[in-house]
Amino acid sequence: MSSENSVGVVAAQRVRFASPLLLKSGAELPGFELVFETYGTLNAAQSNAVLVCHALSGSHHIAGHYADDPENVGWWDNLVGPGKPLDTRKFFVVGVNNLGGCYGSTGPLSVNPATGRRYGADFPMVTVEDWVAAQARLADHLGIATWAAVVGGSLGGMQALAWSIQLPQRIRHALVIASAPKLSAQNIAFNEVARQAIVSDPDFHAGHYAENGVIPTRGLRLARMVGHITYLSDSQMGEKFGRQLRHGAHNFSYDVDFEIESYLRYQGDKFARFFDANTYLMMTKALDYFDPAYEYDGNLAAALARAQASFFVASFSTDWRFAPARSREIVFALLHNRLRVAYAEIECDAGHDSFLLDDPHYHSLLRAYLENISV
Amino acid sequence: MSSENSVGVVAAQRVRFASPLLLKSGAELPGFELVFETYGTLNAAQSNAVLVCHALSGSHHIAGHYADDPENVGWWDNLVGPGKPLDTRKFFVVGVNNLGGCYGSTGPLSVNPATGRRYGADFPMVTVEDWVAAQARLADHLGIATWAAVVGGSLGGMQALAWSIQLPQRIRHALVIASAPKLSAQNIAFNEVARQAIVSDPDFHAGHYAENGVIPTRGLRLARMVGHITYLSDSQMGEKFGRQLRHGAHNFSYDVDFEIESYLRYQGDKFARFFDANTYLMMTKALDYFDPAYEYDGNLAAALARAQASFFVASFSTDWRFAPARSREIVFALLHNRLRVAYAEIECDAGHDSFLLDDPHYHSLLRAYLENISV
Repeated sequence: MSSENSVGVVAAQRVRFASPLLLKSGAELPGFELVFETYGTLNAAQSNAVLVCHALSGSHHIAGHYADDPENVGWWDNLVGPGKPLDTRKFFVVGVNNLGGCYGSTGPLSVNPATGRRYGADFPMVTVEDWVAAQARLADHLGIATWAAVVGGSLGGMQALAWSIQLPQRIRHALVIASAPKLSAQNIAFNEVARQAIVSDPDFHAGHYAENGVIPTRGLRLARMVGHITYLSDSQMGEKFGRQLRHGAHNFSYDVDFEIESYLRYQGDKFARFFDANTYLMMTKALDYFDPAYEYDGNLAAALARAQASFFVASFSTDWRFAPARSREIVFALLHNRLRVAYAEIECDAGHDSFLLDDPHYHSLLRAYLENISV
Repeated sequence: MSSENSVGVVAAQRVRFASPLLLKSGAELPGFELVFETYGTLNAAQSNAVLVCHALSGSHHIAGHYADDPENVGWWDNLVGPGKPLDTRKFFVVGVNNLGGCYGSTGPLSVNPATGRRYGADFPMVTVEDWVAAQARLADHLGIATWAAVVGGSLGGMQALAWSIQLPQRIRHALVIASAPKLSAQNIAFNEVARQAIVSDPDFHAGHYAENGVIPTRGLRLARMVGHITYLSDSQMGEKFGRQLRHGAHNFSYDVDFEIESYLRYQGDKFARFFDANTYLMMTKALDYFDPAYEYDGNLAAALARAQASFFVASFSTDWRFAPARSREIVFALLHNRLRVAYAEIECDAGHDSFLLDDPHYHSLLRAYLENISV
């Protein structure tokens, strides 16, 4: 069930864009559909719209619940609702499943009009910049010339940053949370292990598993397990699980000995039941490729010279995936361009996933920043 | 080829122990063989023997090279030799492939005398304490009543620590390097991902792959890839690979884009060609189970109350697998027991694998400590 001050019952919407989309890779996608949800009401001036971008495994379902599935509460329900930091009495909030996703937008599970069969591995690689272009079409469709704000955590924060560079006139505020201006070698390494787990699964069939009636469950499960380790902090994992034994004694076998093993297997199994492997691969590549400074000889400040938005940047003390130092790189580049930046480094024990929690300090900062946005 | 001041050409030896070994798990191993190498000469007083214990993927081949394989240099050749910190003009150095290993000692690849077939998954689980017991038999065989020192890094350091508790009269010095008194939840989590990669490989056949004429190459490769990330520091990976592209541009495919991907795949492939999967599983469990404080209600100082050795403990600033704080836990427990401890926290960029390098500060400390050992 939804929390107190929920937006209540919501329903997903769908829009089809008929004209082709030229992707950063050079490939062209002939038309596409996006699934999205909205909460609150777009004002007459169309000045109160906020786009919330999802991260690797997120979706368009940000807040509220479905009439026929009350347990399926949006993934950022603690943030979005009447009286919540992203207040739906003030803002018109939009969530969208990104192009290439597996929650209903056009992606690898969709039917390729050219062949009449599912795209599978033939779905073109999409990037953060392509998502921004697709989201801009959704904004056009909704009559939103300029977002009051684009908000995202992790890979979602990269989209907010990309919006500020790519379409600087169409975004007034960018909220870039638990993010980074580009992945480190270690970040890429973890993604690569996840990808190799998937592509080396015999059920992957070079990405055409759906055509073969199977799912690379083993690979997806491993990918999620290794990812999950990087979402949590060492200290939180220690506090939550430590060396607690599942059965009170050492088994001297490969069954579950420690609670952390049970937890990881559970998370992996759960994820492998619903997430699409090709989407997972593509999402990790979108992360790897994201690097706005790439075309500016590594100079992030130069890449951000076009930005006009005001920024809220936040990082979390125990996030070792995208550590505070990575957010500070963004802040320095913004300040170099004399842009307005509010930066917060928040003490929170929950590692990278802190951005999804309702830590009081974190939420009060978000609330204060969002309250100050004029609409 | 071996380095300068090499011990030169070496040859492995083999010894068979006929009497059964009761393992910590309760299982009994009917006789076993150990493969080992020695460097230097045991003195008349038998007071100059040093045991070097290997870590997860190491072997008995610590120094020098083989006459028929000059490129196969021992894994700690920079430490062991005439004039090196572990000076073979003074010490008689012993390396042994641990029980359950895959370099020649009795292990999962050996033939089970009870069935006439390879043990495979039927090889009993062995622990750090079982290794100490097996190494003690080797000491008996060599006529070594007391080791001048037992030395090890990582899992090897755990063996040195276990020697000091289990057979306190038989060890004068313990050198515990880049180690920990027990794994954290995060450490166990990484091991569990590696294990699940192996056991979920369709070629694993519940551990009886050898009987089926196959090898779980995919699983081993993934296990090594994820392990490798934890052996290196984030900063070193950044310096060494950063975001360097393999082909100068983004591929927009799942081929290698970044150098770090190429490096990890190479390391994984190489490892999967020679290491035994059942041994890998067992080694990770030996790591997970190691916890001398377990039978003392978590009190490491109480566990170490029996120790009599003098200690050299060292950690490395960028080691996030077994961070300096983990070594300090050992140091505190030793000091609580008024044992003699030299502790060094060494600035080194190479992460966990620093213990294998010849960082000048690190090696000068080792040299000074070892020079002071009377024989």
